[in-house]
Amino acid sequence: MAAVNRQITLASRPLGLPKISDFQLVYTALPSPAAGGVLVRTLYLSLDPSMRGQMNDTEKSYARPVAIGEVMPGGAVAVVVQSEDPGFRIGQVVEGMLGWQEYAVASGSELRNVDPDLAPISTALGVFGMPGLAAYFGLLELGAPRDGETVVVSGAAGAVGMVVGQIAKIKGCRVVGVAGSDAEISWLHDELGLDAVFNDRTAVDFELAIEELCPAGVDLYFDNVGGAISDAVIRHINTRARIVVCGQSSQDNLESPEQGPRWLTRLIIRQARAEGFLISGYAERFSEGREQLAKWWMQGKLRYREDVAQGIEAAPQAFIGMLLGNNQGKQLVQLSVP
Amino acid sequence: MAAVNRQITLASRPLGLPKISDFQLVYTALPSPAAGGVLVRTLYLSLDPSMRGQMNDTEKSYARPVAIGEVMPGGAVAVVVQSEDPGFRIGQVVEGMLGWQEYAVASGSELRNVDPDLAPISTALGVFGMPGLAAYFGLLELGAPRDGETVVVSGAAGAVGMVVGQIAKIKGCRVVGVAGSDAEISWLHDELGLDAVFNDRTAVDFELAIEELCPAGVDLYFDNVGGAISDAVIRHINTRARIVVCGQSSQDNLESPEQGPRWLTRLIIRQARAEGFLISGYAERFSEGREQLAKWWMQGKLRYREDVAQGIEAAPQAFIGMLLGNNQGKQLVQLSVP
Repeated sequence: MAAVNRQITLASRPLGLPKISDFQLVYTALPSPAAGGVLVRTLYLSLDPSMRGQMNDTEKSYARPVAIGEVMPGGAVAVVVQSEDPGFRIGQVVEGMLGWQEYAVASGSELRNVDPDLAPISTALGVFGMPGLAAYFGLLELGAPRDGETVVVSGAAGAVGMVVGQIAKIKGCRVVGVAGSDAEISWLHDELGLDAVFNDRTAVDFELAIEELCPAGVDLYFDNVGGAISDAVIRHINTRARIVVCGQSSQDNLESPEQGPRWLTRLIIRQARAEGFLISGYAERFSEGREQLAKWWMQGKLRYREDVAQGIEAAPQAFIGMLLGNNQGKQLVQLSVP
Repeated sequence: MAAVNRQITLASRPLGLPKISDFQLVYTALPSPAAGGVLVRTLYLSLDPSMRGQMNDTEKSYARPVAIGEVMPGGAVAVVVQSEDPGFRIGQVVEGMLGWQEYAVASGSELRNVDPDLAPISTALGVFGMPGLAAYFGLLELGAPRDGETVVVSGAAGAVGMVVGQIAKIKGCRVVGVAGSDAEISWLHDELGLDAVFNDRTAVDFELAIEELCPAGVDLYFDNVGGAISDAVIRHINTRARIVVCGQSSQDNLESPEQGPRWLTRLIIRQARAEGFLISGYAERFSEGREQLAKWWMQGKLRYREDVAQGIEAAPQAFIGMLLGNNQGKQLVQLSVP
């Protein structure tokens, strides 16, 4: 067992898009678990758009800001290497908020067992992790899709969006996916079976695209991106439409707030609703969500795509790339092998 | 009985704020009711902000656009002067969508009986009419106010807003009213008992005003106005806040859509909801709403204020004045006396 733990800490608060120099790779001593604790070695680290917000020192955010010098927080899949908790055995695969580091100490209550027989263990950070659960509860609870409705998903090839699109198809909806590369667009159409797709990096006129691809209007919009694409979709919502606001990736790295057309009148005219959510609000129902996702998985109804960077030193660049939308599927960093 | 019916028709579609010349006063023959019909003489005509939208030729609006040369639509309280429907007797006071005219013919199913013993008959267009019902269902169904919560109402002295503020007080909320004149502000505070009020025509810094008057944040925002005041309120919403979108009077007369800061990220952070509604969506529950409003009225818990112009020829100017926010309370036009 290595005697050193490598971690990535926050070196400085980014203004706009983070830079490599906003992160620092530090070497620390391997931690030891106290009674009841568990030492784990990280296998996969999850990179999530929401981490960008935590790098700010904003007073009113939904997650505690990371302190300068603190290890970057993040979900990870890990293997138990030392256990002072009888509930965990060496070699067991677990998942938890372990941070950007090669080793971590956690109490048993902070860890969740991962079943390696269900699916590849990295899916505990994707389809069966926070992204999958965000898709599940956001779409089904707030969006309440009905058979035959038109659903638009922005960021459709992202970790959340890819699950949203597939669940919406399972629910009998016509699904239109918006993504930022032709490779993603092809994958969404050919592999996931979305009904229509378009590339919001190359489309010239979003409104025209939405009009053409949603001839019956939009009943449900699952928004991971915000900005101009949302403006176009919202202009085409139907009566009693639901706008599920999961992310606003187009806004997260702006140095100052962006302006856009006001659209509350449209909510009146359409008797429509826009609702934001955090997956933490559904914590008590995670097992229900995972159970249903596992059923669909075993029926072959859920596919996924991962973009896996190698080694903790690659995490900052992979994170910045993900914020730029350069990743192809759920962004992970593999830190070690089981 | 006069042999002439005076009507106001739409002469031209306004761009921005309507002008007097967009309306025309026309003289027509008194209509005769067919079998089953009723001829009524209008006592009070209601002027509503939503009429502005109907003057547009917008394809996708919530109300049918008025045709050029057509009588302006509008709710009115009237008295039956001739009846071919056994359910209505001469002298009976009724309410219905009778339009901007001194006489109208309607079928019995289009008329609702008004009880002159409950309250002054003009309240059938205010507290007990569409404005009161919009306040009732919008606030209680979409807003779901809870005891001790902070409620902000924009357009608080308007026909809807004044009822919203009073129901929110009945429900035990701390109510902050925003209105556009010092006279209204005084009335809201001194007569209706709102907890805090401010004038959005003279306030220099809306955010500062909201911060000072809502030290515990905003749990429920009932929006009749939109624009900069809504920007400021939305920046201060609490977790699980509800934004009820009833009107956007600041936007209704703009020649082109206004830009404003994007704020969907705030819905995510606050796990909050914005929902628009049309009162027509609650048509099946109007009697339930009127019953509860009547109970509060008889308990002395509902007050109101009216701004009554005289004569049909005064309607266009009164309407324009209302769009400019110059009215003091619910805007009516008295066309005749019982």
